[in-house]
Amino acid sequence: MRQSQVLIPTLKEVPTDAEAVSHQLMLRAGFIRQIAAGVYAYLPLALRVIQNVERIVREEMDKIDAVESLMPAILPAELWQESGRYQTYGDNLFKLQDRHQRDFILGPTHEETMTYLVKNVLNSYKMMPKVLYQIQTKYRDEDRPRYGLLRGREFIMYDGYSFTANSDDLDKIFDQMEQAYHNIFDRCGLDYRVILGDSGDMGGNSSREFSAIADIGEDTIVYSDMSDYAANLEMATSIIADNPTEKLAPLQEVAAPGVNTIEALVQHLQVAPQKIIKNVAFMADDKPVLALIRGDYDINEVKLKNLLEVNELRPATDAEISEKFQSSPGFIGPVHLSVKLPIIADLSVQNLCNATTGGNHKDQQVQNANIDRDYQVDQFADIRTVKAGEISPDDKGTLQFTRGIEIGHVFKLGTKYSQSFQAEFLDEAGRPQPIIMGCYGIGISRLLSAIVEQHNDEKGMIWPLEVAPYQAHIVIVNTKKAEQTSLAKTVEQQLIKEGFSVLVDDRKQRPGVKFAESDLLGIPVRIVIGKKAADNIVEVKLRNQSEAIEVAQNDLVDTINILLKNYIS
Amino acid sequence: MRQSQVLIPTLKEVPTDAEAVSHQLMLRAGFIRQIAAGVYAYLPLALRVIQNVERIVREEMDKIDAVESLMPAILPAELWQESGRYQTYGDNLFKLQDRHQRDFILGPTHEETMTYLVKNVLNSYKMMPKVLYQIQTKYRDEDRPRYGLLRGREFIMYDGYSFTANSDDLDKIFDQMEQAYHNIFDRCGLDYRVILGDSGDMGGNSSREFSAIADIGEDTIVYSDMSDYAANLEMATSIIADNPTEKLAPLQEVAAPGVNTIEALVQHLQVAPQKIIKNVAFMADDKPVLALIRGDYDINEVKLKNLLEVNELRPATDAEISEKFQSSPGFIGPVHLSVKLPIIADLSVQNLCNATTGGNHKDQQVQNANIDRDYQVDQFADIRTVKAGEISPDDKGTLQFTRGIEIGHVFKLGTKYSQSFQAEFLDEAGRPQPIIMGCYGIGISRLLSAIVEQHNDEKGMIWPLEVAPYQAHIVIVNTKKAEQTSLAKTVEQQLIKEGFSVLVDDRKQRPGVKFAESDLLGIPVRIVIGKKAADNIVEVKLRNQSEAIEVAQNDLVDTINILLKNYIS
Repeated sequence: MRQSQVLIPTLKEVPTDAEAVSHQLMLRAGFIRQIAAGVYAYLPLALRVIQNVERIVREEMDKIDAVESLMPAILPAELWQESGRYQTYGDNLFKLQDRHQRDFILGPTHEETMTYLVKNVLNSYKMMPKVLYQIQTKYRDEDRPRYGLLRGREFIMYDGYSFTANSDDLDKIFDQMEQAYHNIFDRCGLDYRVILGDSGDMGGNSSREFSAIADIGEDTIVYSDMSDYAANLEMATSIIADNPTEKLAPLQEVAAPGVNTIEALVQHLQVAPQKIIKNVAFMADDKPVLALIRGDYDINEVKLKNLLEVNELRPATDAEISEKFQSSPGFIGPVHLSVKLPIIADLSVQNLCNATTGGNHKDQQVQNANIDRDYQVDQFADIRTVKAGEISPDDKGTLQFTRGIEIGHVFKLGTKYSQSFQAEFLDEAGRPQPIIMGCYGIGISRLLSAIVEQHNDEKGMIWPLEVAPYQAHIVIVNTKKAEQTSLAKTVEQQLIKEGFSVLVDDRKQRPGVKFAESDLLGIPVRIVIGKKAADNIVEVKLRNQSEAIEVAQNDLVDTINILLKNYIS
Repeated sequence: MRQSQVLIPTLKEVPTDAEAVSHQLMLRAGFIRQIAAGVYAYLPLALRVIQNVERIVREEMDKIDAVESLMPAILPAELWQESGRYQTYGDNLFKLQDRHQRDFILGPTHEETMTYLVKNVLNSYKMMPKVLYQIQTKYRDEDRPRYGLLRGREFIMYDGYSFTANSDDLDKIFDQMEQAYHNIFDRCGLDYRVILGDSGDMGGNSSREFSAIADIGEDTIVYSDMSDYAANLEMATSIIADNPTEKLAPLQEVAAPGVNTIEALVQHLQVAPQKIIKNVAFMADDKPVLALIRGDYDINEVKLKNLLEVNELRPATDAEISEKFQSSPGFIGPVHLSVKLPIIADLSVQNLCNATTGGNHKDQQVQNANIDRDYQVDQFADIRTVKAGEISPDDKGTLQFTRGIEIGHVFKLGTKYSQSFQAEFLDEAGRPQPIIMGCYGIGISRLLSAIVEQHNDEKGMIWPLEVAPYQAHIVIVNTKKAEQTSLAKTVEQQLIKEGFSVLVDDRKQRPGVKFAESDLLGIPVRIVIGKKAADNIVEVKLRNQSEAIEVAQNDLVDTINILLKNYIS
């Protein structure tokens, strides 16, 4: 394709309202333009990347016998009222009425539609398993759309749905999908982690989240530097060393006027945080709960909430600490507690000898507190937020922290939607059963942001080969020279024959402008055709290399193939 | 692909609410399902046809250097307010608000968005011509969605836009587009006509409408049986024979009580309709106009309205005929007309000798009326509705009538939108000029309806080869027989290697059911693998043939290629 034909409105200035590097670069390189907040036009180069990603997804889905279909974006409100999500999705749902005042939504996802479609169709175990997917424009009325394609209001998703008659088949498809996702993200050149979800109703790990490593990511990911272990910070766990065993000393009360934080306590009593029990008073569905953790850790409220199986968990107010806990804010603790209430302790407190903690009297703390003798715990559990450098729970490597962009998920839905829609099949015994479902998602347009976040330098984007808008960029130095334009034509045809997609910069521009724009666009292979064209010699350089090499046109393809062995995947 | 993996929910009954054959067949064959009125889910087989059509469109666009992009479907209302179409599009526009009460629409077309995008980008004549297109989901809140994919509210369109610095370039692109459309519709196996639009502001013929012949079509098309001539009934013209020359007879008034129609006049005076001048009183923007036409023709109000260049044209009421025309309803005519008003006569009246017509007196008509001597005409023009069997205006063949489905159009927009949006470029002299635009559309999802309307029989659909969901259908008679499944595998791989897309019916079903469903789906080549599998013999039949032939597996590909030479394109 001749560059003069393509619309690539590059910008000289960095757009001031774009925070993320990927957003800046996609605007600067003329890949996208904003039409409204969170709503973008994909210009030719961006669309080519999207189509490459879509092709990869389709190829990997073909391998696992998933079949493509296409649902509408306009969905009748009734479908979402049936599942209850018309209400629970809240303001994120775009709602509209047609000319006859019938209510519709713009679909952010299609569990309801797919379940409605297969109802009365997949009516026998013989018709399953089936896996359907689509690649479609989705809508989500985000409160704060940002970072370009990363969090938009109109975006392109892959969404897949599996329908099975038993959970063994679901497990099998789930594993195939997970492998397909690995293949897809590997081919996109992404560095990512697979995060295990919590155990759901289905038994076993019922979800995986695929997260691309990026500073701009909205999730904090904890991962092992030596293994596949990865988790969201809210779910991450670790191995911590046992507390040292000591001879028990007698419980002792010490004056601590105004000493109501761990830091002050460490200062006041010259005791290590590892010897302190930190106490946090919570209201869990309006009932008091006391949580204990070692002084060098913080309580992870998500873990505690999941453990307690409550709808609401919040720190108690000072008034509640006085009234419900019969204690004094800043001096609460498990010792001398006069009210009977649940006490949950993190595993870090287990076997902690001669601990310093609160005794429920203002301006006073206790030392040498020991479990059973001085206080009781109802349950020990992992309720802490892990810290970087701890040992990975699989005992392989230490934990690292990073930020991540959610790029995909696989999820065992079970029968939630098939029960809502009475989508049943007859099993081998002729009994009606709800269809067992799985759902699978990949953020196609968001992947572009993730790829650019990972692959760029000060000059622009650096596209991995399989997703690049074009794989080779032929830059004609002087388009007035017939030998240059003629050699460019020859090289273009040669490369196309070898399966490369090729962009030819045929514009009347200064070479410096052309080279800078070539770097900005990030096309993997650059071939410069200049003065030595008369001798059939061109210059070739990969986008992530600094030095170009001269090569005879006859040797060009071999040279490129050798160079590409060391290119980013 | 194994048929057991694909979702093809065939129906035994003809759906009662589907009127069009294509709608019935697509529902029966499990191609589509309705989600709301005019809103459909494309199931796997329909989507494959759509993707084939899209591939053809992309290939033909590549040939003419048109570049693909993708605009959002959600558009800010401001864009459409700027062009004025937010109001004029009326109830057909889907409107919605986001969570911040900002107004949006769902785009039915993208002239505004594209013009907004290129504004300040295509700012020099050096950057043009450029042709951008997209294949995208469009929205139109039709009052009466019907005929399945033919008139939906969510549908897939190709829409292209050209940007040029002068009208020569526009003409060139317009011609290239027209050729690309021919290629596309030919490859889709469609029988269609190209209808010339009226001369617009741009000079010359400023539009072409491509219309697929189909009884269900909403437009009446007039075409020549011997040439490329085609036109909408509103625009069609013809060559009519000159009226015979006669010696002029004296004007004569005859009593004609209650004889106020052509039919009655023929009866009453025993005169041929070809000798009668029919007179119709119109109010054109509230001014009286009298239109004359030969008694065997009807006035074409669209032609007359265009000729008069008025906004509103309607037949005059009886009261208006009395008051404004000073005449009597049913007896109006050009003779003895006492009011001065414009008289427009169709070409069929030219040189009509000794005509019978109205003399503006109740219950009386005049005979032997002759122009100039007895009445005046301000303008002769073609204002008649043509009739089947007339001579084509290019003097090649006779006119035929048919119904058509609009499947595409090409249109010279000129500067309408570039002026609204101040999208200007500097010409060679450095003067600012509005960009000259063209727009181009193809109804992608609607094409499926058009193709099925043209290609079906009592057993089901008959897909042309290039758009067929699969090109070959391997039907295994008995899936329990290892030699049959094994030979099916071999044949499948053989056909895939030859470039065919292949569906294998691997289901445990009675052969009769499988054959009937195969016919319903309309896959071009059917290969039945049955009892003779042990001898490597299969049966092959094209969908539009009645007799299958036995062939050795080794000869299968050659046989298919020979058979396909006589298949529909």
